[in-house]
Amino acid sequence: MPESVSRRGAIASIVATAGVAATGGALLTGGLNGAASGHAGASDAATPATPSPAGLHGVHQPGIATRQQHYAMFAAFDLQTANLPTAKIATNLQQLMTRWTTVAQRLMLGDPPGPIPGNRPDAPAGSGVADGLNPASLTLTFGLGPEVFDLIGQKERRPAHLRPLPAFSTDRLEPAWSGGHLIAQICADDPQVVSHAFRSLRGQAPGLARLRWSQQGFLGTFGGSTPRNLLGQKDGTSNPKPGTPEFDQAVWAADGEPEWFTGGSYLVFRKIRLDLPKWDLAAARDQDLVIGRRRDTGAPLSGGSEFTAVELGKKGPDGRPAIPADAHVALVRAIPMLRRSYNYDYAVQGITEPIIVEHGHANQDDGHLHEHHSGNSHGSYDSGVLFCAYVRDPEAFIRAQRKLAGSDRLNAFVKHTGSAVFAIPPGSQPGEHLAAALSPSG
Amino acid sequence: MPESVSRRGAIASIVATAGVAATGGALLTGGLNGAASGHAGASDAATPATPSPAGLHGVHQPGIATRQQHYAMFAAFDLQTANLPTAKIATNLQQLMTRWTTVAQRLMLGDPPGPIPGNRPDAPAGSGVADGLNPASLTLTFGLGPEVFDLIGQKERRPAHLRPLPAFSTDRLEPAWSGGHLIAQICADDPQVVSHAFRSLRGQAPGLARLRWSQQGFLGTFGGSTPRNLLGQKDGTSNPKPGTPEFDQAVWAADGEPEWFTGGSYLVFRKIRLDLPKWDLAAARDQDLVIGRRRDTGAPLSGGSEFTAVELGKKGPDGRPAIPADAHVALVRAIPMLRRSYNYDYAVQGITEPIIVEHGHANQDDGHLHEHHSGNSHGSYDSGVLFCAYVRDPEAFIRAQRKLAGSDRLNAFVKHTGSAVFAIPPGSQPGEHLAAALSPSG
Ligand code: HEM
Ligand code: HEM
Repeated sequence: MPESVSRRGAIASIVATAGVAATGGALLTGGLNGAASGHAGASDAATPATPSPAGLHGVHQPGIATRQQHYAMFAAFDLQTANLPTAKIATNLQQLMTRWTTVAQRLMLGDPPGPIPGNRPDAPAGSGVADGLNPASLTLTFGLGPEVFDLIGQKERRPAHLRPLPAFSTDRLEPAWSGGHLIAQICADDPQVVSHAFRSLRGQAPGLARLRWSQQGFLGTFGGSTPRNLLGQKDGTSNPKPGTPEFDQAVWAADGEPEWFTGGSYLVFRKIRLDLPKWDLAAARDQDLVIGRRRDTGAPLSGGSEFTAVELGKKGPDGRPAIPADAHVALVRAIPMLRRSYNYDYAVQGITEPIIVEHGHANQDDGHLHEHHSGNSHGSYDSGVLFCAYVRDPEAFIRAQRKLAGSDRLNAFVKHTGSAVFAIPPGSQPGEHLAAALSPSG
Repeated sequence: MPESVSRRGAIASIVATAGVAATGGALLTGGLNGAASGHAGASDAATPATPSPAGLHGVHQPGIATRQQHYAMFAAFDLQTANLPTAKIATNLQQLMTRWTTVAQRLMLGDPPGPIPGNRPDAPAGSGVADGLNPASLTLTFGLGPEVFDLIGQKERRPAHLRPLPAFSTDRLEPAWSGGHLIAQICADDPQVVSHAFRSLRGQAPGLARLRWSQQGFLGTFGGSTPRNLLGQKDGTSNPKPGTPEFDQAVWAADGEPEWFTGGSYLVFRKIRLDLPKWDLAAARDQDLVIGRRRDTGAPLSGGSEFTAVELGKKGPDGRPAIPADAHVALVRAIPMLRRSYNYDYAVQGITEPIIVEHGHANQDDGHLHEHHSGNSHGSYDSGVLFCAYVRDPEAFIRAQRKLAGSDRLNAFVKHTGSAVFAIPPGSQPGEHLAAALSPSG
């Protein structure tokens, strides 16, 4: 406990020094945007951009306009429903969101999460796993899946665009990694802080909800430059910048939404496995053509440097379009969304069932270069992108993904194996929990 | 490529500034020990303690006496053996170790790993995944499993104490996570650097060896203080300190070893799953008694602070031993080993088979607190410790683990689900690869 107390003290004095009022109602977006150059660890604690003091309070939840932290965990939960009447499910949701809002606020301040409900009185106050650790820019972001509003008997409060995603022709979805009534996005610059936050939230759920799936990702410490994905590409170049009208337009829900959802957003989550051995055997030029940008610099193949606008009409020396019509950026250019994705590389760490077994991929000149086993072969090797899009309306994602499923050159290297969509409520009011607007009595 | 070149340049100039000679033969231990206070990211690059310049060259391999980095991946490979004569397996091992030594040296310098053997000439020079990233104190450490020396027909060069571990009464081993002919321990302060290094090594293996299992762990950014495990305990307090006679005595092989193995060590790897929900429901006092130290401060229950010596004879106010005879530290006190373990928290990210299904654990006063599902319940929830001990002789581990299996209070909360042992060859000579001493012609 002494360590925790001093941690809180340290944060409070940082906040005071920086002249940032730690009032609950502070609007978060301004202080949390991408301006902070990404770097992990203790140094972040010294910047006033740390989201902790205001936490979930504000117009929007944290973890969206926030600079991307280096680790993320996505944990989907299902509400208990067996033999429960609608009214009970609704009050259970209120109870869980009350607990989660409380725990999340504490954790973002670097305080212990508080007791596990119903635990023995002589149990320790928390797991202690993060004692002595800086909150490391922890943000917790919560969302509600499409089934929730029927389950709690509040169809009329359902966000206007919340419905299950349609199937796409290239889907290879695994039910174990898809769907969910509730999502918690847990991001921080320290994986132990993420693990601790996850465990603290999960400890509040028994009797109310159960864990459905979880996924974990990372981003390298690229400092101020665009992070690279596991294909080696700069990924995120043309994202809208927090604080601009383009960003607000792309991200915050607005079209025909219920009053309570003002300041909300939608999260589309896709687990996308990459076939890295196949990619590593592709020619450099073909890799560039897949995206329509140079892998090394991120510059469009139509010329210039990373942040030069893409010119689709531009011809190459051979008279053909510099960026092919089926290149990734040609297909989805200017479809507005915030991509806040993470890399994942599980290798063969679990005892994974082979989901996709690829045979006979490109293998130029060496007969024994690749073998396929029934055990831990490429089929069960699992790494790729935890694709996250924050959007005003999931329709933007659907439009983009339909185009990609139709003809994207990337399709030869990617498989969508998980999928989920959530409405992300606005930030909470001081003294209220997230989704208090969905209270059955309200 | 330009980024990589400048990265190398940057390191070279740091080394020059710090006055550290980047000669290949430099003895590593001195510069790499635990004195550096742990902090991730770019700041490490500015300290001369970064292991990169000397890499694998020296008396010992890096990654043992080195300050623990924040991420680790353990990748076990099996040599190709089907229908191959002994001589061919032996030359394959030489070829793989030549490739791995070369790639490892490049990566530790922050250079691209070089081409994938047999890849098309127009393929890119590397995956690009770490372009723009600091090597983040990357170390690569390689080891040889007990079967290798028979497979390559060199029984007479087998390290004196290399044999499979015996079974322990509490083992619940999963073959998928156990054993292996070869191990690569990959540690760095950036998970993307670790992922990149793993992929670069794996790309050298086809035709020679195949991936058998992999595991990934982390340590929070605890600065100079002892890192906490997922039970919330300070773990590593009584480790020997690099640079002391105790350390050298505990870690470096010496008893009756073949000449070539001078400077070598042994790695005992155990994947140990923790039952965190059960632990979280235990009383604070019982948690302390399990280890014999206070969870919050790490101080022995016999009194003092974290680094006070444990006094087993000391009685508590009730006249009973302050540290019970079956407390963890009472059982294994002063058995010499370097524990260089990592936490892991896979939650339910894979489609894991339930390995251990626990029922009916402590649940004091809330009938609906825990439910058990056949799906993603506690049984498939996977987090714990990737226990790594570097020892002069695995016998020290065996002795400790026999005592623990017999009566450790921790047994109620832990299950050993993976196990492997490896001989860790000494560092390489400039121009030679690791394990060059095992050349069939040598
Ligand atoms: C693993 C799969 C994917 C990879 C590796 C990938 C990679 C990339 C890369 C390298 C860029 C160019 C740099 C940038 O602007 O960020 C890009 C742009 C983009 N991607 Fe993806 N992407 C993937 C999946 C998707 C999916 C599923 C969608 C949506 C359905 C999507 C939508 C976009 C959009 C909207 C852009 C910006 C285009 C522009 O306006 O220039 N991507 N992606
Ligand atoms: C998940 C399982 C384990 C946990 C959570 C654990 C935790 C701890 C803790 C908290 C300490 C006291 C602090 C310290 O000195 O580091 C400790 C000490 C120690 N542990 Fe473990 N341990 C585990 C497994 C093992 C195993 C498998 C072995 C060897 C077979 C082992 C050997 C030791 C030794 C030698 C010490 C130092 C004792 C002394 O000299 O004071 N531990 N362990």
